[in-house]
Amino acid sequence: MTTSSTDGGLLAPTWAGTPVEPLVSDEAWLQAMLEAEAALARAQARLGLIPAAAATAITAAARHEYLDVTELAHAARAAANPVVAFVPAFTQVVANLDPAAAEYVHRGSTSQDILDSAAMVIARRAFDLINSDLEAVAAALARLADEHRHTVMAGRTLAQHAVPITFGLKAANWLQLILDAQIRLRALVCAGLPAELGGAAGTLSAYGEYAEIDSGTRLPLGGVELLAPFAEELELTEPTTCWHTARTPIADIGVVSQFVTGALGKFALDVQLLCRTEIAEVSEPAAAGRGASSAMPQKRNPVLSTLIIAAARQVPAHAAILAQSMLAEDERPGGAWHSEWQPLREALRLAGGASHTAVELSEGLVVHPERMAENLALTGGAIVAERLNVALAPLLGKAAAKKLLTCAAHQAASTGKTLAEIVQATPELDGLIGPRRLTELLDPAGYLGGAAGLVDRVLERYHRTL
Amino acid sequence: MTTSSTDGGLLAPTWAGTPVEPLVSDEAWLQAMLEAEAALARAQARLGLIPAAAATAITAAARHEYLDVTELAHAARAAANPVVAFVPAFTQVVANLDPAAAEYVHRGSTSQDILDSAAMVIARRAFDLINSDLEAVAAALARLADEHRHTVMAGRTLAQHAVPITFGLKAANWLQLILDAQIRLRALVCAGLPAELGGAAGTLSAYGEYAEIDSGTRLPLGGVELLAPFAEELELTEPTTCWHTARTPIADIGVVSQFVTGALGKFALDVQLLCRTEIAEVSEPAAAGRGASSAMPQKRNPVLSTLIIAAARQVPAHAAILAQSMLAEDERPGGAWHSEWQPLREALRLAGGASHTAVELSEGLVVHPERMAENLALTGGAIVAERLNVALAPLLGKAAAKKLLTCAAHQAASTGKTLAEIVQATPELDGLIGPRRLTELLDPAGYLGGAAGLVDRVLERYHRTL
Amino acid sequence: MTTSSTDGGLLAPTWAGTPVEPLVSDEAWLQAMLEAEAALARAQARLGLIPAAAATAITAAARHEYLDVTELAHAARAAANPVVAFVPAFTQVVANLDPAAAEYVHRGSTSQDILDSAAMVIARRAFDLINSDLEAVAAALARLADEHRHTVMAGRTLAQHAVPITFGLKAANWLQLILDAQIRLRALVCAGLPAELGGAAGTLSAYGEYAEIDSGTRLPLGGVELLAPFAEELELTEPTTCWHTARTPIADIGVVSQFVTGALGKFALDVQLLCRTEIAEVSEPAAAGRGASSAMPQKRNPVLSTLIIAAARQVPAHAAILAQSMLAEDERPGGAWHSEWQPLREALRLAGGASHTAVELSEGLVVHPERMAENLALTGGAIVAERLNVALAPLLGKAAAKKLLTCAAHQAASTGKTLAEIVQATPELDGLIGPRRLTELLDPAGYLGGAAGLVDRVLERYHRTL
Amino acid sequence: MTTSSTDGGLLAPTWAGTPVEPLVSDEAWLQAMLEAEAALARAQARLGLIPAAAATAITAAARHEYLDVTELAHAARAAANPVVAFVPAFTQVVANLDPAAAEYVHRGSTSQDILDSAAMVIARRAFDLINSDLEAVAAALARLADEHRHTVMAGRTLAQHAVPITFGLKAANWLQLILDAQIRLRALVCAGLPAELGGAAGTLSAYGEYAEIDSGTRLPLGGVELLAPFAEELELTEPTTCWHTARTPIADIGVVSQFVTGALGKFALDVQLLCRTEIAEVSEPAAAGRGASSAMPQKRNPVLSTLIIAAARQVPAHAAILAQSMLAEDERPGGAWHSEWQPLREALRLAGGASHTAVELSEGLVVHPERMAENLALTGGAIVAERLNVALAPLLGKAAAKKLLTCAAHQAASTGKTLAEIVQATPELDGLIGPRRLTELLDPAGYLGGAAGLVDRVLERYHRTL
Repeated sequence: MTTSSTDGGLLAPTWAGTPVEPLVSDEAWLQAMLEAEAALARAQARLGLIPAAAATAITAAARHEYLDVTELAHAARAAANPVVAFVPAFTQVVANLDPAAAEYVHRGSTSQDILDSAAMVIARRAFDLINSDLEAVAAALARLADEHRHTVMAGRTLAQHAVPITFGLKAANWLQLILDAQIRLRALVCAGLPAELGGAAGTLSAYGEYAEIDSGTRLPLGGVELLAPFAEELELTEPTTCWHTARTPIADIGVVSQFVTGALGKFALDVQLLCRTEIAEVSEPAAAGRGASSAMPQKRNPVLSTLIIAAARQVPAHAAILAQSMLAEDERPGGAWHSEWQPLREALRLAGGASHTAVELSEGLVVHPERMAENLALTGGAIVAERLNVALAPLLGKAAAKKLLTCAAHQAASTGKTLAEIVQATPELDGLIGPRRLTELLDPAGYLGGAAGLVDRVLERYHRTL
Repeated sequence: MTTSSTDGGLLAPTWAGTPVEPLVSDEAWLQAMLEAEAALARAQARLGLIPAAAATAITAAARHEYLDVTELAHAARAAANPVVAFVPAFTQVVANLDPAAAEYVHRGSTSQDILDSAAMVIARRAFDLINSDLEAVAAALARLADEHRHTVMAGRTLAQHAVPITFGLKAANWLQLILDAQIRLRALVCAGLPAELGGAAGTLSAYGEYAEIDSGTRLPLGGVELLAPFAEELELTEPTTCWHTARTPIADIGVVSQFVTGALGKFALDVQLLCRTEIAEVSEPAAAGRGASSAMPQKRNPVLSTLIIAAARQVPAHAAILAQSMLAEDERPGGAWHSEWQPLREALRLAGGASHTAVELSEGLVVHPERMAENLALTGGAIVAERLNVALAPLLGKAAAKKLLTCAAHQAASTGKTLAEIVQATPELDGLIGPRRLTELLDPAGYLGGAAGLVDRVLERYHRTL
Repeated sequence: MTTSSTDGGLLAPTWAGTPVEPLVSDEAWLQAMLEAEAALARAQARLGLIPAAAATAITAAARHEYLDVTELAHAARAAANPVVAFVPAFTQVVANLDPAAAEYVHRGSTSQDILDSAAMVIARRAFDLINSDLEAVAAALARLADEHRHTVMAGRTLAQHAVPITFGLKAANWLQLILDAQIRLRALVCAGLPAELGGAAGTLSAYGEYAEIDSGTRLPLGGVELLAPFAEELELTEPTTCWHTARTPIADIGVVSQFVTGALGKFALDVQLLCRTEIAEVSEPAAAGRGASSAMPQKRNPVLSTLIIAAARQVPAHAAILAQSMLAEDERPGGAWHSEWQPLREALRLAGGASHTAVELSEGLVVHPERMAENLALTGGAIVAERLNVALAPLLGKAAAKKLLTCAAHQAASTGKTLAEIVQATPELDGLIGPRRLTELLDPAGYLGGAAGLVDRVLERYHRTL
Repeated sequence: MTTSSTDGGLLAPTWAGTPVEPLVSDEAWLQAMLEAEAALARAQARLGLIPAAAATAITAAARHEYLDVTELAHAARAAANPVVAFVPAFTQVVANLDPAAAEYVHRGSTSQDILDSAAMVIARRAFDLINSDLEAVAAALARLADEHRHTVMAGRTLAQHAVPITFGLKAANWLQLILDAQIRLRALVCAGLPAELGGAAGTLSAYGEYAEIDSGTRLPLGGVELLAPFAEELELTEPTTCWHTARTPIADIGVVSQFVTGALGKFALDVQLLCRTEIAEVSEPAAAGRGASSAMPQKRNPVLSTLIIAAARQVPAHAAILAQSMLAEDERPGGAWHSEWQPLREALRLAGGASHTAVELSEGLVVHPERMAENLALTGGAIVAERLNVALAPLLGKAAAKKLLTCAAHQAASTGKTLAEIVQATPELDGLIGPRRLTELLDPAGYLGGAAGLVDRVLERYHRTL
């Protein structure tokens, strides 16, 4: 056996060694190609086009261990795709097992039928895994949203404290995105991953021709009869027509992968920011040796969020290649199809690695409400200046109120006094607003608007999505 | 009024002067922002939070002609978004009309609520237009698929003749993609374009605070009450929660635009190839002066397909920016949000221009079946070599049959003889296959497999989608 | 005059109203197309191919105010490019001025010669402007690097304090990137912006043919004679050959724009982070009304960095479209060329708007060394744990030292004690290290390695680049 | 040893089994990381900072075979980069060889110094290979340009015959692009691939600290002394400063890769079009079994061009990720850096596979001048209508000439008559133009303008570039 380890994940810690890796490896693709060949044979046998024994033998032979994946990879250059060299190699494997069956391997088929169908099998498996991970992430975030419904923290916009929010609302926002991704993923898995069958140019003609030669069966629909049983055997959707150059299913996979890493990436990006030394409102779950630096003993790097962000920065580019592949000329293009395979796999495994990582991150996220409270107090109450503005406007007039508060906030920032102290000392407000009312107005916990209600709405959506 | 014409379409013939242009122009965005402000006022009035008269006045004042769009564009730099300067300008317009109403403009609101809601209004309008165009394109392609069900032509793979197909099947394949795009577009328009309402950091707090100050109303849900009426007034979906940093709706718009131009682009790419001087199987619809060259009198350039392809090459990049914007930190990011607006518009108008162009192209496409027949004959019958291969395999053995036909095809290509002549002169076949059977086998029209059935399946899908 | 304001910058505050805007507007492109026509006429006149008076008249007529840019934009759809309709319109303008000259407009030329040459003229002007801006930015950053050579602050990696650095080194790092961008920009402007001249299919044939007809001149080089004078008249580089489908110059513009916004974007991203409420080590320059929020009086948003980051997130996508345009088939492609124009302009104006914004940001950046010092102290000395580790290793052994310090750092983080206190109280170190040595080791200012030397090296490079 | 073959090229026939593959594999990266460690040790020994014997032992131990690359890949997740787990593993290898040397492994260093330097080593090797390939391609194209200087063929624009060109000019245009790519590649290899050395946060501080501890040497430049010898040992450029977050070298690699595949992609795209069954003006070099179809015996697919186009459609997306990585916050970002590694490798290996493939394609390209002549005649002379237009304008007036020729060209297209026949039968031209002059005007070989001169200019550039 030729060996090679061109890319075993050394440069991709997001997915190296995670469960998605073996689902999309070269061996997994080869296995999926074999399964497509076996499914074709069984579908043909079900229609009486080839002997049942042949289908059985072909199915039995369909194990990637019988083939040399590296040799096939290298041989693929001669045809610009890995199927042409694979067919005789697999035929030989079948022949070793059952010489009579060998004749029926890849009967009437074409490279793209096998490779496209294999791609869908691969995508379904990867997405099933990702879906489970997203379920775990959603459950963890739902818990966080629920538990921290009343944990007040600073809302931040354009890198500045804005108004108070709750950590529950932040978690609900993350959850919202995960649900968006899940819904799109499930819709695709349920209906959008079709088997591919078309023959040389999408007419299925050789399938019908062989049917006649092999079994004397005239297929009245010219081969269309094969679509349903073939798709069934692969547990894929039955295609309306051959999609050799109608690449929606491929573009869809890129899109869904991108929604997965986009949703997870937003979560990770926020976690990483909240982990900053100066902010320190959350920590990543600790694990022996994780986040260590080779030189700095004090460091605990937020590596889980880093792994997820790294994925999220890459997948849109892969998805863009797949989207561009819709521009596929003729009945099979010379390049557009061939540029899909690597980005499709990389999108899936980055999404799979990111979602695996996010399970641990979301389940183990450590929240520091006390730091949230400290940070909330950092600006001496300016974080509720909006509220004061609303309250003072009818007393002072809109413009005067805003001017007063802008000055007061800057004074608070520069002197270290609180907004309360400054506002209370303002002569214009003398007698207009009592200290108790002011204290009330300046309590961040009293200025949370609909935060709790929004958390409930997202949790309801979560329970509906389950 | 300041004037400016930075980009009126001189560099974008795909959309310049087409119906989508005025739907997404700066004026249209400004108008949509005004509509968002007016809808907010009406929603607040419906809940009794502000006087009905104020909402009426605000609605009456919400006409972009009252504002100077260029001045606002330039003023937008001070806040990095166009809303902050727009609010006082619009407030002044309202004040001119009804001074008492001015107080209630943008009450409790934030820039992103207005701009995000405006973006959804813009997207809905553009997508409605695109949907109509896609309907027309689909109808035209369905007609072509139906009419040319039996028009035989060369199927081409990797730039080479492969096996015969029908032009009807090709049109059905284009139709399949249009239906894919339409389904995704409609799903988004029906459910995926939510109004945006969150206030400064997504808690809706100022909406509730003003409610108390203005009308003494305590909103038990803290502002969540506003979501439904606000969305209703804008004819948008009610959001589950504030999506200031849960950017699925934005990414979705990019994705759908990309499916639209991808689907249209495949159609255009094929048309352009079939228009090649040497192929000439279709022509673009003629129009006075169209496709002219400034210097070459004989030229009739396929400009409609060119315009569509130009769009299809650009939109995935815009969609990728929008996908990347999911990485939006905190409660409002400093850059990710701001990088969405231009790509979102450009994606919509390229999709709109392309779909407008595609209506004319699909409705007027001129098909040349006689050239299809001539081209089909070009290779002296080699286009059905696959079929012969199937037929001869049981007579000669698989390997011998393939070898014989490979030689024969090359001989046909080099000598100009037909495959029939060469095969008939082959001593190995003497007595094995009669001339009549050979003629039958070599008739491209007899080797179409399931083409007609696949056309039917796509047309059925089309009728279901209607 | 038809009016239209499709895109005057309302959605692009990065460039709206900045100096780059009028350099790349539709009017500017139209003017550059006119200049290309005039330059061609003058080049032809210099070779005696057309009357000098015609060239003079054509040059005089070459003012965009004489044409209706919106009308031309709409007319461009008929040819899929704006030149075909522009030529007769401009010819008419010339005819009004000098009927005899009209004959010589666009003599022997083709749309792409005019539009490509215009694009290079536009790019050169935009890059000249950007270069000036980058010079100002570089000067400001050089000043900051020099002044803050000894301003100690926390170095941060993966969002965590790492080891001390200086603000001067940070500014030098920003400067390094600006210099990288400048060098690439200047190299392109000096040598990489060629005039375009090829005629219908790149052979220059019609130029030669007209030469014979018009003046009886046989051009021995068949038109190649025109390249030098044409390029000279436009102040562009003389091309080696026609580059209608050798699109390096176009891809180069994308690349340079991307280096400009990438370099500026890193600077802006760091500024925005350092502006965070919790960090507050720098502030953006204040200006009346800038960074204001419509609702929150205390807010001063880092809008300049936001505008720059918004640009930096978009330009790579535009550059990717331009890079993809290298795949331009035949002698002129049907789509690839047409997809270049908008991304090319948008890349230039985003780069131009970003560099304009960066001048103000870099020149006015307010540095808060006292906050840097406070933040440096946040971790109780853990920021020099690396150093202690080095120092203790020979005393305790490598592993023991690291273990001790990891514990100590965590203890410091959790108890609020300083690392010094904890380390001094460690029995293992009793007698091994004196308090003075420990104080020295724990001084961040004493652990800056080569920071000052690196600042010098970058400043030397800056002075060489000037 | 753990084994794994996640990606051995099964989905990437462009590079599977080509010379670039082993240069960029996981093993190659691991080896380059080892070389960086060894170079650091030798540089430190050269300055007397560590014992020479230690450097020798470390260098001797630096063989990837001593480590388990898959184990390291999996362990990389704990730190989000492969270096942290690699250092103790390699230290153990050194310890086995020379226990005293183990202490000096990775002395003062940080993960990014090692990985960035390794990336540059990898890039240099890949680019050296690519450069050799481009030299061979350039030589082959120069030969084609020279030999086919007078081979007339149809120039094509927007998929239509335009005016005649020569195949030599087409080859020269391809060559022009290759030279553009080569110049950019060589410039980068010569000056733009710097070693990386900065330590934890770019100040080199630990290098200096260890120097004192290990050898009592106070480095007056605080570690800057190491830059030159370290770069020398790796045969890389000496950096001005640490570029942990000044990512120009990384973005540059993407850009150059993209120019390489863009240039090759244009060549391949043209070849593929010229190979079309209906055009057939060139063929790809034949090789046993290459371009075969599994089912269609007549097929010879243009697989070499397909492999190249597939690469060219992917690399700009990878380059865009690398460009986006310039937005790297702080002194080391949590995600931007980590998203560079896979795209960087994939860009290099796609470029390397494409250039390897292009050598064979360019050296073996089979040109069919007779088919070029046949296609040139397809339009009955309309391909020189531009010339006739020029010639007839003074005789008939500009507008009348163009109208006449537009009609004549369409008549030729529809009747099969030649343009000559139709023009000669035009009464308006009676006596104005003799048949000999007409024949001369209608000879495509007489309307080549400066084609030969342009070929010379490109060849001169080629000879200068050598």
